[in-house]
Amino acid sequence: MSDYKAIEWSEGKLKLLDQTRLPREYIVLDLESCQDAIDSIKEMRVRGAPAIGVVAAYAVAMAARDTQATDMGSFLEGLEIQARRIADARPTAVNLAWAVERMMRLGRRGNSVDDIKKSLLQEALLIQTEDEETNRRMGMHGMDLMPDGGTVLTHCNTGGLATAGFGTALGVIRAGWEEGKRYGVIATETRPFLQGARLTAWELMQLGIPATLVVDSSAGLLMRQGEVDCVIVGADRIAANGDVANKIGTYSLAVLAKEHGIPFYVAAPTSTVDMSIASGDEIPIEERNPTEVTTLAGVRTAPEGIGVRNPAFDVTPHNYVSAIVTEKGIARDPYTEALLLMLKDRRDNGC
Amino acid sequence: MSDYKAIEWSEGKLKLLDQTRLPREYIVLDLESCQDAIDSIKEMRVRGAPAIGVVAAYAVAMAARDTQATDMGSFLEGLEIQARRIADARPTAVNLAWAVERMMRLGRRGNSVDDIKKSLLQEALLIQTEDEETNRRMGMHGMDLMPDGGTVLTHCNTGGLATAGFGTALGVIRAGWEEGKRYGVIATETRPFLQGARLTAWELMQLGIPATLVVDSSAGLLMRQGEVDCVIVGADRIAANGDVANKIGTYSLAVLAKEHGIPFYVAAPTSTVDMSIASGDEIPIEERNPTEVTTLAGVRTAPEGIGVRNPAFDVTPHNYVSAIVTEKGIARDPYTEALLLMLKDRRDNGC
Repeated sequence: MSDYKAIEWSEGKLKLLDQTRLPREYIVLDLESCQDAIDSIKEMRVRGAPAIGVVAAYAVAMAARDTQATDMGSFLEGLEIQARRIADARPTAVNLAWAVERMMRLGRRGNSVDDIKKSLLQEALLIQTEDEETNRRMGMHGMDLMPDGGTVLTHCNTGGLATAGFGTALGVIRAGWEEGKRYGVIATETRPFLQGARLTAWELMQLGIPATLVVDSSAGLLMRQGEVDCVIVGADRIAANGDVANKIGTYSLAVLAKEHGIPFYVAAPTSTVDMSIASGDEIPIEERNPTEVTTLAGVRTAPEGIGVRNPAFDVTPHNYVSAIVTEKGIARDPYTEALLLMLKDRRDNGC
Repeated sequence: MSDYKAIEWSEGKLKLLDQTRLPREYIVLDLESCQDAIDSIKEMRVRGAPAIGVVAAYAVAMAARDTQATDMGSFLEGLEIQARRIADARPTAVNLAWAVERMMRLGRRGNSVDDIKKSLLQEALLIQTEDEETNRRMGMHGMDLMPDGGTVLTHCNTGGLATAGFGTALGVIRAGWEEGKRYGVIATETRPFLQGARLTAWELMQLGIPATLVVDSSAGLLMRQGEVDCVIVGADRIAANGDVANKIGTYSLAVLAKEHGIPFYVAAPTSTVDMSIASGDEIPIEERNPTEVTTLAGVRTAPEGIGVRNPAFDVTPHNYVSAIVTEKGIARDPYTEALLLMLKDRRDNGC
């Protein structure tokens, strides 16, 4: 089962592993249209910034394929509207906007409607392949940071399910393990959506890595008792100065790690870096539906009428981040320069 | 509904509001024996250190009442065994041991079996009355610490449900509100048992205090955004040096509060102070059943076979605590002296 595929293009459909049903059910959805893909992102059937980017790319390709327009003008006009709808499906992760923009840049350069339709599908397939390759390279760079012996703590889900394959933070954990290092992994359950309990715990078991599930709020106790050697998490958007937007609770873990002198690492592809944003203060934070907090498994647990705040992400300022692992290497403070160099390298390679 | 009673002695039975059923159902249990009372503590139908102490006192009284022994020797011998079983129902909260010991000290001084039976019931009633009175005094002392305007964050449940009435930390919040101060309260849901979502949210609504429910891990974000003016929590045991054992997640909140320069207060009766314990390192931390973490509302959310750690409490070192509010006043660093003075005062008053 360790070769589960979260996303697979097959016979004109996008086969998507429904992550809201794991670990109880292993159900693969057929996404047949751009709208299906948008719905799957909004309903979090696919989540994880890189995986959302891949699905968004296929959404653009399907929007192009299914359009009735035959002249370039109205074809591109319609596609731009669809592209904006896809990009707006969720606000925080930059990979979504990045993937849509990369697709549209290609689309706008096309010569004919048929050419564009064909090349957009190829580009989506390429984005998917590249993402998995990127993650493997990230793992190669990051595995030196993993301890040999001891325990790594991770938050949310950043594995094969969150990406086109292999994973970001969980990919680094996996790369170190496959290199022969031995450690346990503490997975925080990650309320309210329980990506840690449902997905990371499941992936770690598939990979055969010893895993311990805990509630989010126990991280302080475990760190104080010396039971955590490092923390590694993914990212939904990284500002030019190295500030990191990631799943709610990441910032609390970073503060706790600093207080206990524990390294705090972030693993994310360079497509997560948004140089147009100077600092984390400018990153929009998605507020999700209050029912994620007031109900559990469909059962209401909080009183009717209670006020709720449900921010899905928080921002960790760069001074709490010990290192950022990307497919280009390891960036450390000062991040602005380190990230600029990596992005320059990305452009030089034509990516 | 704001005069709900969590614990009431009536017609030879202990009427107990079943806190595992709130807020969906308001069900009052009849506890008819010492064993019923022990079960209710173990199953967390009653929880909150002071409330557990009150139920434990009634458990001793019922054990005495129901004994068949007529000679003092075997009566007391049997009672000591029952007392130990009650005290062992849960390990972390000291109020449980404190209440049992107070009852037994009285019992051992008795002149006849009948006298002891009668006086133990009176003592249990007194412990209950005193606890509510203690909480009201704690509220009087603590309300000066509450902001006028702004927001107070609290963790777990420390209200009328956690005590004989009025509450500890939530009692301070209530006292300030009744004095005319105005603020909102952020209640953390408090995984895994959701005392915040189920109980604190419910009590705040009964009291008419504006309440917002959040997941535990969002506290860092809210503090960083300037949305929290102070934190106040209860305690299950306080060591001689002021280290505080309380619900898992308390320590993380204390570290975050310190990082953001936000006052972090603890409210607890002096019966929570355990002078026999020099520091928090010696406080036993209860590990509860893994299913609290792996299931939600009876539905399994984590994969079968996953490892789990489920510590129910953590310890916050005294240097993170801005002040400890008791029924005797407000203690501040150095806590050893301040707490000693308060306890001396307690003994002088014959408590």
